[in-house]
Amino acid sequence: MTRVRMDLFASLDGYTPSDLTPDSPMGEDWGRLTAAYAGTRTFREKIFGDTSGAGTTGVDERYAAAFFQGVGAEIMGAGMFGLHSHPDDPDWKGWWGDTPPFGTPVYVLTHTAPRPSIPMDGGTTFHFRDAPIEDVLAEATEAAGGLDVRIGGGYRTARSFLRAGLVDELHLLVAPLFLGRGYRLWDDLTGFENTYTVTTEAAESGVVHVTLTR
Amino acid sequence: MTRVRMDLFASLDGYTPSDLTPDSPMGEDWGRLTAAYAGTRTFREKIFGDTSGAGTTGVDERYAAAFFQGVGAEIMGAGMFGLHSHPDDPDWKGWWGDTPPFGTPVYVLTHTAPRPSIPMDGGTTFHFRDAPIEDVLAEATEAAGGLDVRIGGGYRTARSFLRAGLVDELHLLVAPLFLGRGYRLWDDLTGFENTYTVTTEAAESGVVHVTLTR
Repeated sequence: MTRVRMDLFASLDGYTPSDLTPDSPMGEDWGRLTAAYAGTRTFREKIFGDTSGAGTTGVDERYAAAFFQGVGAEIMGAGMFGLHSHPDDPDWKGWWGDTPPFGTPVYVLTHTAPRPSIPMDGGTTFHFRDAPIEDVLAEATEAAGGLDVRIGGGYRTARSFLRAGLVDELHLLVAPLFLGRGYRLWDDLTGFENTYTVTTEAAESGVVHVTLTR
Repeated sequence: MTRVRMDLFASLDGYTPSDLTPDSPMGEDWGRLTAAYAGTRTFREKIFGDTSGAGTTGVDERYAAAFFQGVGAEIMGAGMFGLHSHPDDPDWKGWWGDTPPFGTPVYVLTHTAPRPSIPMDGGTTFHFRDAPIEDVLAEATEAAGGLDVRIGGGYRTARSFLRAGLVDELHLLVAPLFLGRGYRLWDDLTGFENTYTVTTEAAESGVVHVTLTR
């Protein structure tokens, strides 16, 4: 049965970076927050194309590998696709390269003019939808064919699904640092954990993995 | 050599409870945040007077036991002593009972009229000081006789020592829940971890213990 999964990244003070811009899709805070994850063998291979087998193999790697397993469709905001950086270019294919790491249908939420779907190498096809999140989720669930649907970023997309109660499993990576700036992921989500089983695990890197499952 | 230690309690969204009032020194959020810690054998004995040996004995207990070890003097705000609840009663001895769990000199920061020190059972003596925190820390360090000085709460007292860079070792207990309200411990402390070695450990309860040491 399809489960709706989400992965979030936050600091000990509850922030997720807001310094991602069209010119800097990652940003300094984002880099610090995700450094340990980016160093895992899975992320080095899947995101950075490093097929040498290098990278860490501990607790962080276990979560990184799970990140890519069992997902049949993805939903993300226009910002995560990179639509805002090229709003008037119908040929822009996002900033995920020729072979995006998703390998599934990816539904990009957008309020801009409709644009045709974009098939990419490696099994990823970007679809663009201007529709309520429940409708897009229904379509993604159908497309996932029994596998899971993952909700990607950015911040607003993630929060809209969290606030609508649509997420079955949340993996929260907490980096052991104090960003002191960014988006506040949890505003208006007091007691969000109440309907979930919560587990925590500390990685060798100091990163804490929090899993909320219902 | 004396080290300045602090123990803080926060939620995953970076809040520490603000619902402690004179009428409810603990408060609902505080209870939820510290539930696992309050269930340890050490805290049941030291705080609640339960000498039966009951209580948890895992990772939380290890930190709870360390909480009471090696401390030679304590500094706390007037609120943690309970001064605000009886501002005009010179005989008020705080809400820590006849035998407070400190067992050391305790320096209470206050701007109210001077009041005489209060010796209590069990080795605790409350002293009241209206002085810069550096001066009170120097006095507490002298009194600690080579043991550590612990900085207690509340929120404002803790933050004043953090912002002044006076804390050598910070133990942060992060409870796996989203309070969504309270005091924001880390405002203006961006990058506070930079001069510390940071380690994390997850307890069986789901609580995460973060230790910052320099």
